[in-house]
Formats: sequence, C-alpha cells, structure tokens
Amino acid sequence: MNSLHDIAEQLISAKNILLYPHVGIDGDAVGSCVAIAGALRTMGKKAYALYEEEIPHNLSFMTEDEEGEPYFTCEPDIISDDDLDVSIAVDCGGYDRFKPYGEKFKAAKVTLCVDHHGTSIVTEEDGTAHGIADYSVIDPDAAACGVLVFDLLKEMQSMTEIKLIPDKFTGEALFAAITTDTGNFQYSNTNRKCHEVMAELYDWGIDANKISVEIYENERIQEVRIRNRAMDRMTVTADGKGAVSYVTKEDLEEIGVKAGETDSVVKVMRAIGGVEIVAFLKEKDRNVIRVSFRSKHSADVAAIASKYNGGGHKKAAGCTLYMPIEEAVKIISSEVEEALKEL
Amino acid sequence: MNSLHDIAEQLISAKNILLYPHVGIDGDAVGSCVAIAGALRTMGKKAYALYEEEIPHNLSFMTEDEEGEPYFTCEPDIISDDDLDVSIAVDCGGYDRFKPYGEKFKAAKVTLCVDHHGTSIVTEEDGTAHGIADYSVIDPDAAACGVLVFDLLKEMQSMTEIKLIPDKFTGEALFAAITTDTGNFQYSNTNRKCHEVMAELYDWGIDANKISVEIYENERIQEVRIRNRAMDRMTVTADGKGAVSYVTKEDLEEIGVKAGETDSVVKVMRAIGGVEIVAFLKEKDRNVIRVSFRSKHSADVAAIASKYNGGGHKKAAGCTLYMPIEEAVKIISSEVEEALKEL
Repeated sequence: MNSLHDIAEQLISAKNILLYPHVGIDGDAVGSCVAIAGALRTMGKKAYALYEEEIPHNLSFMTEDEEGEPYFTCEPDIISDDDLDVSIAVDCGGYDRFKPYGEKFKAAKVTLCVDHHGTSIVTEEDGTAHGIADYSVIDPDAAACGVLVFDLLKEMQSMTEIKLIPDKFTGEALFAAITTDTGNFQYSNTNRKCHEVMAELYDWGIDANKISVEIYENERIQEVRIRNRAMDRMTVTADGKGAVSYVTKEDLEEIGVKAGETDSVVKVMRAIGGVEIVAFLKEKDRNVIRVSFRSKHSADVAAIASKYNGGGHKKAAGCTLYMPIEEAVKIISSEVEEALKEL
Repeated sequence: MNSLHDIAEQLISAKNILLYPHVGIDGDAVGSCVAIAGALRTMGKKAYALYEEEIPHNLSFMTEDEEGEPYFTCEPDIISDDDLDVSIAVDCGGYDRFKPYGEKFKAAKVTLCVDHHGTSIVTEEDGTAHGIADYSVIDPDAAACGVLVFDLLKEMQSMTEIKLIPDKFTGEALFAAITTDTGNFQYSNTNRKCHEVMAELYDWGIDANKISVEIYENERIQEVRIRNRAMDRMTVTADGKGAVSYVTKEDLEEIGVKAGETDSVVKVMRAIGGVEIVAFLKEKDRNVIRVSFRSKHSADVAAIASKYNGGGHKKAAGCTLYMPIEEAVKIISSEVEEALKEL
C-alpha cells in the first residue's frame, strides 16, 4: 500500500486527470470526487469524474465548479487516451465498480486509487496487499473516503504555493461525504478521526446546516408517497420483532418513483422500537422481486439472503426472488419469523 | 456570569444536591443531568434530578446508575430542605422551566445554573448580566448543555483524586445530549467545539452507534401510524412550496398516540424538496386545534403564529385555534399560501 504523499505527488505532476467514482454513486463518492477535482482545477489542471447515470438530485448542489463547469461527465473522450496522465478510482477499487470505464482507467499513464472499502484490497499469496492501481491508498478505518481526501488535500497543500484549502465549497463537499457515509455520525464506522476532521472543516467556513437541508430535506413527494404506501401495508410479526412490507410495480408506476427512491423504507421500518428484522419487497417486474433486509442488533440477515442466492452484511442484505409478489411476501415473512426464533 | 470552576467548586463542597431539568425534558436535559449526577454519586454524594413527568422512552436507557438507582425522581423530599446543599438548574434557567419545583430550588444553601439558552440571561439596567442562581454559567454559543457539562466534568476532575472521567456511561449520556440538541449535527447551532467534544468522547469508549439506535430507532408503532395518516392526508399548495396536514382527536385515540408522538410529522413534511412552509394541525379537543409551523429557508412562520396569539422562532412556531378542525385547516392553508406569496 502507498501513502497519500505518493498520490499527491502523482496528481501534482499530472496535467489531465480522470476520476472514477462507483456505480450507484453516493454522497461520499460525489463529495470526494468534487473535492479532488476542485483542487486539481484550482491548480490549472483538467479534471473530470466519469459517471454514466444521473447524480441523485439531493447531491446536485455541488456538481459544478464556480464557473458552472460540471465536475461529472459520461464522456470518456473528454480527455483523449493519449493525453490522459492519471486515472484515479475514488471511493472504490475494482473495475466492476466503475463500469463501463475500465478500459479508459487503464489507458492512463499512471493509475491511482483512494478508497476506504476493505474489499478493494487484493492480498497476494505472500501476504503483500495492494489495490488495482499503480498507487493505492485503501484504508478501511476511514469512516468515509472523504476523510482520506481531507488528508490528501492537506498533503497537496503542503506541496504547492497555490491555495487549495481552507476552502468553503471544498469543505462542504467533504462534509457531504462524511455525513452521508456515517449515517449522520450514527453508524459504527463513525470514529474520533471523522469528528476531528469535522471540527477542522468549521474553520474552512462550511455551512453544515445549509448542506444538511440540501441533502436531507430534499425528498421528492413521490418518495414520501411510496414510503407511505409501504408503511400502510406493513405487517408486524413475532411479537413486534419482525416487520415485512412490499410495493408492486403498479404502485411504483402509479406514483412515478425513480431508482433509489424506496431506499428510505427499510430505514423507517427498522426505526420502530422492538423491531429486530425488517424485509421490504419491491416488484421490479412481473415475477422479479427484489428483497431488502435489515437487522437492528444481532440477527444475521445475510444468512437469509444467501438462501436465495443473495448476499450482503449481517445487518443489511438483499436477494432477488423470481415468483409472483404475493408468494414472495409469504416466503419472506416465514423466513423472517424463522430467523427470529433462532435469536 | 460565573465560571465552570465556580460551579465545580460548589458541587464538590456539597453533600446533597438536586438537579432541575426543564419541563418537556429532552435528550440534552436528560443526558446533562445524568452526567452531572453520575459524577456526584461517584464522589459519594447524594444527587437526584427532580422531574414530574415520564421520561421519553427512547431516553430511558440512561436513567439509572450502575446499581439500578434512578437518577430521576418526582419526590422533592428525597432530600429535605434542611439537608439540601445545592440546587442546580440544568439546560434551563427560569423558575417556570422547572415547575413545580421553584420553591424547592430556592430552599438550597447555594443555587447554581448551567445552561445554553440565551433566554435564561437576565440583563440589569446597568448592563450586567446574570442568571437566576447564585452562580450561573449560561453560554448560548454552546451547541448543547452537554458541551458545557463536558467541560464542567473536566474541571471537576482536575480538582479531585476520584476518577470521574473518562467514563463510558457518562460519555454516552453526553453524546445523547449533543446528538439530540444538534439534530444529529445538522442544526445551525452545530459548531467546531461540539465536534471536538465528540472526538474526545470516543476516547471515553462510547458506543455511539448503540446509543443512536436507542434514541433514533425506537419509535412506537403508533408514532409511525399517526405520521402515516397525516402524510396520507397532506395537501400541497403554491406549486409545492406549502404543505398542510392534520389529525383529529379520533385519529389520536383510535391509534393510541401519546404526547410528543406527532412531533416527527412536521420534520417529514419539511423534508420534502421545494417545500418552504409546512403546517400541521392537531385536534387536541373539540374546537381546540394546536398548529405547528415550520419553514425551511427564509419564510417567517412566527409571523403567522403571532396573528393567532401564538409564537416561536422564524423557522419553528405554533399557535392554538379555537374552532372546528375543518375550519382551522382552511384558515391555515390560506395563511400558508398568503405567506408564500410574500416570499
């Protein structure tokens, strides 16, 4: 594994840089890319993040620089292969995580990776560990990639005369990265270091309240409506320890729900006191049912998901069932009850 | 105004101490009381917080010490007037804020106050400022009273050999105080100092995730049901800038809703993107309608509330209307539309 000094050195000596956030982009990936690309542009370099899908609307407040130039593009040829000095994977470290830009990534003279996902670390037979890039910093102890980017920017600042930080806009991008990836400083990845970074970001002039309103008080009404429908339909089992709900394709179309807009359902279900396991089923298509599981304390929902060729973590997992929605609801309800018996 | 050293000195020289949190107790008041009373008990003193109502169930995890002795009691004579060395108002600083214990408070040999509400500061004609107590520390710059208590405990620790801190349980009470009063580090009172305190609390061994689950993933199902009913009934006006909803007494009784369990409705309403003003009406009794207003950015909802003898802040206000609920909904809806025209 390399140091942030190595990463900083490569970025500073490059002219044209592309950044690669992960598919299913989130606040950490957007904020980290914006902070790095912003600093590179301040140094007079050409820097863009490659991303094919739409950026979630509650993160769009930071996707352009002060001149109105977007930080994100889906066009890999914005920098030709010949001109591409550096490719840097941000908040991810596997080619499948920034599809369809794997070939573009490799075309750069130098490849870099800054990430906090342990799954991005490749361990060789001799025990040495590295990432996919020529220079990788992958630190699973970092609560967010934004925490690493904070240190990277300080490192870069120490190596140049150009003023990169403290900078309000950059600080707000890093705040967005950290608040979203720690679930508002509530998840178990939250630690001393990320609060230290937050304390320092206040010296950069951030308006954390303004950014919080952008991120968290920006639901589309459709998101509220579909969550309400799911909550109205929720059934509670096993003395209040299990909760199961679902929405149909018809619901989604009638209300006009976009991708990701049912994500809050499992959160609200799990927030009920006494609930240990929740399952939410979404009919993506006839006989294609996506199931999301969450557990609150000790229950292992990855074990349920894996029975249906799914996977995930102990407290957050998912699988897909190929059957009518009514049948899937019955099966998952009894799986939840079974799992609760074993607690 | 005094210093935390003065407060510490008085607490350390006392034997029997009563604490006075405010009515409508919240996470900051509970956590601050628990942290102070816990330290005092560790020093072998008798310390209780006087509180008449039920403590909200999501804060009850911290209301007893390790021996199972409650920190809170409604019984003022748990320490007789003669034995009462110190009364300390916590997270409040006016007699009306800890009714019905005003007389008990005054019965102590010495009275203290630790608070962060500017409204607790009494300014004399000659410009000098003080609180209601013999020794008061009232610091409106503190994001939470818990931040002041953190410094108070450090001060007390510097004055005694007994180990008060670092202590996991005390740290978790202070985390509860800070996370609730800053709205999860989102409100505009959040600042550098409170993140510095948080960083240090991690050295005390706090499990912030466990406490967050206790506080935020502990809704009663009735709370979910009433919110859902309100959200189903919500009407959106003025191009999505206004949102109004209501629940009837019949709704509240049918679902079995307790006091405070409709508080989340205005939060979820305001979290809708584009919404600037929300109003939520609750039929407390026939022809007694409690109205809660919230605004997101610049709208002044206190101005609306004051037209109906209510009050509050620019972004959070309330009033009571004495009329049938249907009529109240109509009046408030047009008030919201009017206010939005003026933006």
